[in-house]
Amino acid sequence: MKLIFKKSDLTNAVNIVMKAVPSKTTMSILECILINATTNHIKFSANDMELGIETLVEGEVLEKGKIAIEAKIFSEIVRKLPDNDITITTDSNCFMTINCEKSKFNIPGKSGEDFSYLPMVEKDKFIYLSQFSLREIIRQTIFSISDNDNNKIMTGELFEVKGNEFKVVSLDGHRISIRKIELKESFDEISVIVPGKTLNEMVKILTGGNDDDVRIFFTSNHIVFEFDNTTVVSRLIEGEYFKINQMLSSDYQTKIRINKKEFLSSIDRATLLVRDSDKKPIIITIQDGSLDLQIDSSMGSMNESIFINKEGKDLMIGFNPKFLIDALRVIDDEEIDIYLLNAKAPCFIKAEDESYIYLILPVNFKAVNKE
Amino acid sequence: MKLIFKKSDLTNAVNIVMKAVPSKTTMSILECILINATTNHIKFSANDMELGIETLVEGEVLEKGKIAIEAKIFSEIVRKLPDNDITITTDSNCFMTINCEKSKFNIPGKSGEDFSYLPMVEKDKFIYLSQFSLREIIRQTIFSISDNDNNKIMTGELFEVKGNEFKVVSLDGHRISIRKIELKESFDEISVIVPGKTLNEMVKILTGGNDDDVRIFFTSNHIVFEFDNTTVVSRLIEGEYFKINQMLSSDYQTKIRINKKEFLSSIDRATLLVRDSDKKPIIITIQDGSLDLQIDSSMGSMNESIFINKEGKDLMIGFNPKFLIDALRVIDDEEIDIYLLNAKAPCFIKAEDESYIYLILPVNFKAVNKE
Repeated sequence: MKLIFKKSDLTNAVNIVMKAVPSKTTMSILECILINATTNHIKFSANDMELGIETLVEGEVLEKGKIAIEAKIFSEIVRKLPDNDITITTDSNCFMTINCEKSKFNIPGKSGEDFSYLPMVEKDKFIYLSQFSLREIIRQTIFSISDNDNNKIMTGELFEVKGNEFKVVSLDGHRISIRKIELKESFDEISVIVPGKTLNEMVKILTGGNDDDVRIFFTSNHIVFEFDNTTVVSRLIEGEYFKINQMLSSDYQTKIRINKKEFLSSIDRATLLVRDSDKKPIIITIQDGSLDLQIDSSMGSMNESIFINKEGKDLMIGFNPKFLIDALRVIDDEEIDIYLLNAKAPCFIKAEDESYIYLILPVNFKAVNKE
Repeated sequence: MKLIFKKSDLTNAVNIVMKAVPSKTTMSILECILINATTNHIKFSANDMELGIETLVEGEVLEKGKIAIEAKIFSEIVRKLPDNDITITTDSNCFMTINCEKSKFNIPGKSGEDFSYLPMVEKDKFIYLSQFSLREIIRQTIFSISDNDNNKIMTGELFEVKGNEFKVVSLDGHRISIRKIELKESFDEISVIVPGKTLNEMVKILTGGNDDDVRIFFTSNHIVFEFDNTTVVSRLIEGEYFKINQMLSSDYQTKIRINKKEFLSSIDRATLLVRDSDKKPIIITIQDGSLDLQIDSSMGSMNESIFINKEGKDLMIGFNPKFLIDALRVIDDEEIDIYLLNAKAPCFIKAEDESYIYLILPVNFKAVNKE
């Protein structure tokens, strides 16, 4: 095999497929990238058996062939080479030579015979949307999946399509995050659970904007993302997702409108007094015109007051500050609406058009004596 | 006590004195910053018994007093407050209240009775130079101190003044780094060993440029740095420094001139094939017009060729790549001169005016069969 690449094409392709190379594994073939140039196209693939990625790479095929090469060292070498043409050749013993200017690397490879190719999936049901939208919708929900494997379903996100509405949901037992967007056309009904790990990697390699589409195919076991020159295939999580509609309620006794940035900075400051172990809640007191935020811990106390518009009853309620921070960080609106019922019912941070809904459960707190 | 600060003045002062707050200690008072406003000036101090820092802070004294406050939480709070005036008050129980806009923090402090003040040192012998020069001279030598406490003297740097020459030396048994600069006038002879830790912290807080001087005072036990509104007092390391002049030789059989950046990039690439544990040397072959760099390890091999100007004999010599990289990184010259005697003698990377000298010991290597 003998191939010539521009350095930028090569680094770009390696960075994409690296996302499917597991950091720890006992099967050394999984640590490899397969470089396949048996036709006139050059294709890079990696596959950790849950998630597989392949991408077509621009380059000149002087001699056809294929090889599996240890991903980590290959990517490090490519990254550190001068910014010039890079030539890759392999010999009959699967040794790879990488040439660039006056630099020459020799590293051992594998024939690639035992490399697991990406599964062939039926491309029947699908939707398409912009890369930007998909990236945003994942970023705005992924923080509330559970990282605890005890309940596998919570480690993934629900992808649901109904007509031209695409809805993404994540939940971890303390909160639910929901984002909806309108698709450009209507599609068949779809409801699948996509592994959080897959989505975390997708966010990193979906670099396109509003004009670059991504097509998403669905089967009963797999989801496939196609964009640019890249295909990502992931297993789905089996099972049925939680009936979240039963958990959502539009009842409220108190509605406030608050400046998001002020609220976020204030909670962020309050967390200075919380050490990881002691799960101190912040206590929020809502009155006409002001939201008071208070925290008391072994390290000290803080209180702070923020101007709000309020409708309905006064209320005192406690929250885990992290859950509020996570949701506020991903909302782009300057002013947000929060709906509350009582100190034991979940609060909803919700857009008027319901394009986002963040449900957060409150925390019990002992009434704090205020000065 | 009641003091008002601009946020920027307060964060700046806290950042400076924090450098003398140990990250781990069993004496809780050492984790504190002393805020002393018993006169009309406000002084912040911290002291870990080896290194003490005090700095004068701009601010309004509405009520005199002093307090010792846990440095970490205080600095975090100050940093996260809005960019506005910050008011600090203390009550008779040593509780501190920090007010900024609508935010109010309460944290417990200490009376400061058991705070160790900085030692009073005689300010007799001294030199002065620009903050920029001192920062650079430290940065260009500090990497070759030893981090092993077995030989205390190696953990510090020699500061030597003779006439108008200021020389800084560090060594760790494998290499020696020497930087010399000319002072603006002549001073008394000085030779002291300054702890590496002190110098590492100095580099972080010496933010001034070429026009901002720092005055350095020397006693038999202490060194004092005075600059801007800040005083840094550090113990010296006791003992006599190594006789380095005996280790320097101007004998050479081979002299090369090489492009620093090319040489550095090339060695940097070679290190991709070295894992921490196996101390593989890089092998350098010097011939007319070219320096060949080769490394062989279990991970693969690399060789690379760089154009050089050579005087004298051909030579093959092995080095620990890290030692070359450390020295090359801090040299500002584009082209550097390297002097070599034979494969077992140290090499010298040296400026013509000897403003810098880097001595690096070679490594034994088994002759590698080249293809």
